[in-house]
Amino acid sequence: MEIEVEQSKLAKALGVVSRVAAGSRTTLPVLNNVLIRVDEGKVSLTTTNLDMAVVDYLPVASSKNGVVTVPAKLLAEFVANLPKGEKVQIRAEGTKVTTVAGKYSSTVNGTPADDFPELPGIDEEKAVRFKIGVDEFKVGINQVNIATSNDMTRPALTGVYFNTFENALYIAATDGYRLAERKFIEKVQAEVAAIVPASSLSEVMRSISDEVEEIEILFDETQVRFRLGEIEITSKLIDGSFPDYRQLIPKKMEQEIVLDRNELVRVTKLAALFAREVGGSVTCETRKEKGTFAVAAIANEFGENDSEIEAEVLEDAKVTLNSKFLIDAINALEETKLTFGISGKLSPVLIRNEKSQKYTHIIMPLKV
Amino acid sequence: MEIEVEQSKLAKALGVVSRVAAGSRTTLPVLNNVLIRVDEGKVSLTTTNLDMAVVDYLPVASSKNGVVTVPAKLLAEFVANLPKGEKVQIRAEGTKVTTVAGKYSSTVNGTPADDFPELPGIDEEKAVRFKIGVDEFKVGINQVNIATSNDMTRPALTGVYFNTFENALYIAATDGYRLAERKFIEKVQAEVAAIVPASSLSEVMRSISDEVEEIEILFDETQVRFRLGEIEITSKLIDGSFPDYRQLIPKKMEQEIVLDRNELVRVTKLAALFAREVGGSVTCETRKEKGTFAVAAIANEFGENDSEIEAEVLEDAKVTLNSKFLIDAINALEETKLTFGISGKLSPVLIRNEKSQKYTHIIMPLKV
Repeated sequence: MEIEVEQSKLAKALGVVSRVAAGSRTTLPVLNNVLIRVDEGKVSLTTTNLDMAVVDYLPVASSKNGVVTVPAKLLAEFVANLPKGEKVQIRAEGTKVTTVAGKYSSTVNGTPADDFPELPGIDEEKAVRFKIGVDEFKVGINQVNIATSNDMTRPALTGVYFNTFENALYIAATDGYRLAERKFIEKVQAEVAAIVPASSLSEVMRSISDEVEEIEILFDETQVRFRLGEIEITSKLIDGSFPDYRQLIPKKMEQEIVLDRNELVRVTKLAALFAREVGGSVTCETRKEKGTFAVAAIANEFGENDSEIEAEVLEDAKVTLNSKFLIDAINALEETKLTFGISGKLSPVLIRNEKSQKYTHIIMPLKV
Repeated sequence: MEIEVEQSKLAKALGVVSRVAAGSRTTLPVLNNVLIRVDEGKVSLTTTNLDMAVVDYLPVASSKNGVVTVPAKLLAEFVANLPKGEKVQIRAEGTKVTTVAGKYSSTVNGTPADDFPELPGIDEEKAVRFKIGVDEFKVGINQVNIATSNDMTRPALTGVYFNTFENALYIAATDGYRLAERKFIEKVQAEVAAIVPASSLSEVMRSISDEVEEIEILFDETQVRFRLGEIEITSKLIDGSFPDYRQLIPKKMEQEIVLDRNELVRVTKLAALFAREVGGSVTCETRKEKGTFAVAAIANEFGENDSEIEAEVLEDAKVTLNSKFLIDAINALEETKLTFGISGKLSPVLIRNEKSQKYTHIIMPLKV
């Protein structure tokens, strides 16, 4: 195995794949390694943590066939510290892998490729395929990822639910306290209902480089593959059924207050400072007589806080929310104005952009 | 007590003083608080952690006499989140402190000023005084602070030693493994020998704003005061005697190799990757025949590394150093070229800028 490639290209590819390689704590040491395979001029770098695999196809100046595995993070850091523009040569003799760039050289003890676990495969012929522009992808995933759960006892809630409904692809997530949904791709032919681990989506998000314009997503029964330029990320799907969330989205709210997004963030942050003592709970209130929307918090020991925003309100209403959830939701919006749907103390709050109806965020009220 | 002041001025002053206020873990809750004192139009904000006190004198639009203490971090964060340009009014009624800015308001429960501990004072009449330009100050403190120790069993080594010698003020620090010294102010009249806690110096460094051009330093027997514009930081000195470090600086090295600073950082970082397994120890070597200076590391399990820099060397020599100490020392230099003084395996290494002799850094060799 031998390759010669420019430093920055190699550093970039190793940076992407080495993130998925395990740290030193794994019980299967070969998961620390990157598999370097050269097959008739085609060079691939692969890492896996068994749940997920990343392959980066590397354009090289020259190469000789072969395959070997070496510690991924060590090689990545070594190459990252080499001078830019330098030609880097990696050559394996048995499992001894020498990396040379000008006057800089290192020898790393690798392992035979046979030790490397088999990668999660996907049947590309039979897979369901979608394509989406990279900007849309990023916005949508960021908007729903915030509502995923960390609770490993309810695995279905730790992922993002890709599902088709009335010829559109939606993504949704909920942790039981809030729910986020985004219309992801309009007018799709294929159908899918699959839960993608939030951790795999985060890895996809991190691996998107500036050159990528479109992302291809392929699903089979048990796996999903994201193709972004030279990079391919394949992940297991989460086994389980996602809650029937559409029935949770209220059809009609008693009031939909139009608010400035920055102003609402500010008053919520101010109230959140006083809400620390009471688990972050803040009270949102419409005040008809004053024509204001208020966010307030009372922390008995420290003091209290009340801030108002001028707004058109129809009637007096009040609801208590977790301030962190509220800030997360507002920050996920794209427009400068939003609608805050409020139907009273016991009803969920519905937050949307003022104009676009693509994104829906629901927060359950706190009982006080 | 009442003050009215523009948001950004108040936010900046609270930002400085609130850092010294204790977190919530203190056994003396009043140390969480900022003392706000108004006396004939002069407004001061003060916090202390008993070892150190910070006072910020605040230019205000209007004020009424009085004094009160309120939770510093809460008030600082509240004010920081208010809109810029807004007039902020703080008003105490008893210990109830109301902060109002436009439609935003909060009430915080403060405590009487009597509870606030007495501040470390300094006798300004009798104190020894020095003045230094802010850029010189920053460079010097950063250069020696890295060599201070965290070992609380040897308190004298946890500070920076301000000392006069042959009509100049020097600062020095050592953790027993390395030593850093900087000629700080030339041609001084006064004399001093005092150890300033590294933590207090860090606080001074953080409190320097862009408007400050000169720093005044005052010492009495037990305290030091740094005056930076409107801010005054007073700290206890460390009680104890600093090692007689001047005798540790070698008068003459067998070789002084001139090296490019960036290149030496690079090869040291490359070697450090392989040195993790062996506690970070790397070998620096002069190779007369090849005309190179090499940095190498051997990590038996993972592999090995060797990088060379072309250099004028007089003879073959070798020394083993802690790679982190070496990188710290190189990064502390100001010029693009440095001299690496090497006298063999058992002798300390001496690192200096190629031209300026103001800064001296010594690293003890590792025995291997």
